[in-house]
Amino acid sequence: MDIGLIGLGRMGFNLARNLRDHGHRVVVYNRSPEKVRQAEAEGFEGTYRPGELVGRLQPPRHVWLMLPAGRPVDDVIDALVPHLRAGDVVIDGGNSHWQDTLRRAEHLKAYGLRLVDVGTSGGIEGARHGACTMIGADEDLFARLEPVFRDISVPGGYLRTGPVGSGHFVKMVHNGIEYGMLQAIGEGFEILSRAPFPLDLRAVAAVYARGSVIRGWLMELTERALARDPKLERIAGVVHHSGEGRWTAETALALGVPAPVITTSVFMRYRSEQAESFGAKVIAALRGEFGGHPVEPAAAQGPAVARP
Amino acid sequence: MDIGLIGLGRMGFNLARNLRDHGHRVVVYNRSPEKVRQAEAEGFEGTYRPGELVGRLQPPRHVWLMLPAGRPVDDVIDALVPHLRAGDVVIDGGNSHWQDTLRRAEHLKAYGLRLVDVGTSGGIEGARHGACTMIGADEDLFARLEPVFRDISVPGGYLRTGPVGSGHFVKMVHNGIEYGMLQAIGEGFEILSRAPFPLDLRAVAAVYARGSVIRGWLMELTERALARDPKLERIAGVVHHSGEGRWTAETALALGVPAPVITTSVFMRYRSEQAESFGAKVIAALRGEFGGHPVEPAAAQGPAVARP
Amino acid sequence: MDIGLIGLGRMGFNLARNLRDHGHRVVVYNRSPEKVRQAEAEGFEGTYRPGELVGRLQPPRHVWLMLPAGRPVDDVIDALVPHLRAGDVVIDGGNSHWQDTLRRAEHLKAYGLRLVDVGTSGGIEGARHGACTMIGADEDLFARLEPVFRDISVPGGYLRTGPVGSGHFVKMVHNGIEYGMLQAIGEGFEILSRAPFPLDLRAVAAVYARGSVIRGWLMELTERALARDPKLERIAGVVHHSGEGRWTAETALALGVPAPVITTSVFMRYRSEQAESFGAKVIAALRGEFGGHPVEPAAAQGPAVARP
Amino acid sequence: MDIGLIGLGRMGFNLARNLRDHGHRVVVYNRSPEKVRQAEAEGFEGTYRPGELVGRLQPPRHVWLMLPAGRPVDDVIDALVPHLRAGDVVIDGGNSHWQDTLRRAEHLKAYGLRLVDVGTSGGIEGARHGACTMIGADEDLFARLEPVFRDISVPGGYLRTGPVGSGHFVKMVHNGIEYGMLQAIGEGFEILSRAPFPLDLRAVAAVYARGSVIRGWLMELTERALARDPKLERIAGVVHHSGEGRWTAETALALGVPAPVITTSVFMRYRSEQAESFGAKVIAALRGEFGGHPVEPAAAQGPAVARP
Repeated sequence: MDIGLIGLGRMGFNLARNLRDHGHRVVVYNRSPEKVRQAEAEGFEGTYRPGELVGRLQPPRHVWLMLPAGRPVDDVIDALVPHLRAGDVVIDGGNSHWQDTLRRAEHLKAYGLRLVDVGTSGGIEGARHGACTMIGADEDLFARLEPVFRDISVPGGYLRTGPVGSGHFVKMVHNGIEYGMLQAIGEGFEILSRAPFPLDLRAVAAVYARGSVIRGWLMELTERALARDPKLERIAGVVHHSGEGRWTAETALALGVPAPVITTSVFMRYRSEQAESFGAKVIAALRGEFGGHPVEPAAAQGPAVARP
Repeated sequence: MDIGLIGLGRMGFNLARNLRDHGHRVVVYNRSPEKVRQAEAEGFEGTYRPGELVGRLQPPRHVWLMLPAGRPVDDVIDALVPHLRAGDVVIDGGNSHWQDTLRRAEHLKAYGLRLVDVGTSGGIEGARHGACTMIGADEDLFARLEPVFRDISVPGGYLRTGPVGSGHFVKMVHNGIEYGMLQAIGEGFEILSRAPFPLDLRAVAAVYARGSVIRGWLMELTERALARDPKLERIAGVVHHSGEGRWTAETALALGVPAPVITTSVFMRYRSEQAESFGAKVIAALRGEFGGHPVEPAAAQGPAVARP
Repeated sequence: MDIGLIGLGRMGFNLARNLRDHGHRVVVYNRSPEKVRQAEAEGFEGTYRPGELVGRLQPPRHVWLMLPAGRPVDDVIDALVPHLRAGDVVIDGGNSHWQDTLRRAEHLKAYGLRLVDVGTSGGIEGARHGACTMIGADEDLFARLEPVFRDISVPGGYLRTGPVGSGHFVKMVHNGIEYGMLQAIGEGFEILSRAPFPLDLRAVAAVYARGSVIRGWLMELTERALARDPKLERIAGVVHHSGEGRWTAETALALGVPAPVITTSVFMRYRSEQAESFGAKVIAALRGEFGGHPVEPAAAQGPAVARP
Repeated sequence: MDIGLIGLGRMGFNLARNLRDHGHRVVVYNRSPEKVRQAEAEGFEGTYRPGELVGRLQPPRHVWLMLPAGRPVDDVIDALVPHLRAGDVVIDGGNSHWQDTLRRAEHLKAYGLRLVDVGTSGGIEGARHGACTMIGADEDLFARLEPVFRDISVPGGYLRTGPVGSGHFVKMVHNGIEYGMLQAIGEGFEILSRAPFPLDLRAVAAVYARGSVIRGWLMELTERALARDPKLERIAGVVHHSGEGRWTAETALALGVPAPVITTSVFMRYRSEQAESFGAKVIAALRGEFGGHPVEPAAAQGPAVARP
């Protein structure tokens, strides 16, 4: 099938390769042209403007976006719409908020265009060699595109979750679960690192990954990370986030579902990004007030700043 | 190798079968004789008293305990000690608290006996067909027993974690991580169950289990559980526990390690066991006091009781 | 000063009395006429339509809303706007979301009308005898209204927090803190209720309320609630909420501020409203799958339902 | 009454003054003699050895300990026992763990000595001018000592909670509640500090402290701390702890009481003491593994160290 792929980041580039391996024709576009030239060097058909990409595709066209969530998706859709025709399809394979997806589907409908949302999991390796895809799409559109989803996913690793928006919803919750699992692993390994026994953490991760109840890809990656840097001395304990965990927490709050573990996982990431906690300052000051507990002076080098 | 196995529960019985499949001679004992007779029917050598079991083994003897944590282990050790001789070995394959294990190792040492602790993961299927074993043992003892651990574990799925006690410590943290992962999955699927899209939860678990970042045995089991009972209508939302999660939380508190997610997972289990929350009553009463918010009367049928 | 007061609920009625006690003329309106008649019986000037209320006030008019957050506020503003003139002022003394307040201020501005937001704390007793008021207002408007705020508040208990919207923001965070404090008290008293010593909980609350670090109004109310019902046998452990705690959690998530305790307090309220937890069902089912742990059958009387 | 007071720290010294103000004879001892000399300068009878202190008291003697929890209490009791006679009384006014108190009561009983535990709240100001005291004591002993407790406490601010041990238990839970309240205040003020409106935090604390639902001593102290240092620029966000919050969490875990807020408050203190989080490193490393998310290198100046 003809696929126009926009966004040659880590995920997008690998997805392009994955699609091509399965015999699809992939025309690519990326905002910064170096990536396009790199793709051309790998034999992809590169284009340098959204309109050019659209022009190279056979109608009905399928333009697959692999972009950071938020504004970039809206910008590209705005740039695409004048070039697309009724019946064309935009596939959003990024981590968009499901409510943005519903809004965009409405917007595109006014032009006779349709949106398919594809939550894509499995990391950059999955994008390359076999992903997990959660697809929100009209049934007829899913039927048409199913061979593509089957091609890029591991066996059994694709699902039409429901109508447009549902793919991103299911992917959002996937990431919320992931946040909680990661925090549980982080806490567990911090306890292990302080154990009364000297432990080989890499070896522990390796045995946890083989035959245990908690075996899975995350534990295999824990082993890999610890093999690379056995005491994690080369990496800072600062955990950024790209939205889905926060959205899962917000969705839980809105739906009335208790989600203390997923939400606390988000907050521990926020905390890790702070060099200094104002809340902790308040508590330290209060202990000083009522108990005369000594407080520690702020570091000499100036006011605390958030880490980048 | 000759193994005396005590405790024919779900885990112990399967471990006996696993050992026998690999050519070991397994002499069994269980407090309730029916289980022993059942084992004899499967061709195992049954015994009806601890001393009888010891008498059937070649010195140095290896007696493997698969018992509930706590008192049962102490009771069996007390019953065994008079029959064992210096150089004999007790292997505790249950979920004992690592501090109990240290205490018992000291106690046995006074008789010239040695203790090996084996944290055993992988569930009842793992015990039968390939477990994950975390072993605290003196090095020479581990070297002697390594073939046995290799036999009963999946490839790569056994590890000498360090001296006696360390196996149960590492297994305890495994279970702590498991508590956090389970709670994250529970929260995620509750959000899915309340999604603005009608979702097929079994199918979602199936796709999460294939190629995603959170793939692993727990997600495969989620699919299996939902295949059995798609809306979980036949099961109560009451989650009991057998200690290791609580011990992980206590260990984190003692070591000064922040473990809010693992600990909150323990507390959500406690909450699930309550038909009524006294803490929530206090808050409801206070809202009534300051805001005049209407409170709900306690159920007519009498005072709230904890569920069994 | 002339005040038109709309909303004769528990808070609004008491505020009307409080204003009148300080010499203000209070014209009242309420959607359901019985409350108006009740106010008339107490000597207030009652009106039966928003326009009638506006007509009775001297320009520039001050219409004070004491309404449930959300739709009711928008509805009343829509009903008022046709009757108000440029320079008139709407005072929102309810628990509106601060972002709604910003939106409404913009909307009213188009008509030459101004909005003042007053976060009102202190419960129904405070509304009657001396509240705590947090006021978002233009400076000139605050200067004009300051005598009123002083009259209805305890000494020192009013503050211009900043421009419109800031009063509701500061009140929202107040309630977020309140959620956390209440949950801490609830947890503490549940621990006390399970102490290895038989404790007189009312007496404990009384001593906590006198001279301790945690003394304050909430502890005094705890004593009062336990004096009324020493074991809280007549009240169900179901804690509803009216939004501000959830909004505080959402604001923390949006601002990148770690707020695990306030947010967990919200989630424990959600949990208290559930007769059955789907998340707990998932975990119980998974324990059954991997460990063969017995699960409890769902209650015989049918599927679990959320409590009203 | 004759009181021997051991421990002239912030709390103990003020309690000595408080007792003397009410006409009691206070003989003091402190391990470091400078404090004793300082007390003598204030007119107290100082002693320089435990035995000397005992020798100055009229039988039955009452020796009141105001010491850090743990070893110091045991050491002083060991030093006292040889000098005390049957019928003498040790009063532990510090923050001992209630289980230590039970153990010590048993120990002292063997010598015919009795123990009274007094949980003392209200901070150093309370110790000086009127505390809150929670007393575990035999009934006859409480009757004898009640005038002393009445003297040093605010009106109504003392309670016999039950038998020995119960005073420290009730005080422990008090501190657990305090941890949760402090964390809620810390979170709330951090949100305020990041508000979309410029807020005067001191003024907000002042208004929260007057007439609001959350008014109380902690809010008054928040105002005081912010008056001292309006942006808390001179204080580090490092919150130490002295045990009771952790013990409350452990007690909740042992009793099966859900206490996620109190426990998370303890963990946020632990987190504040870490310059770097190993758990966060693990998560950052895993995000790097599966998503290629860039990780931040550890700071150049060497491995992370815990703050003092």
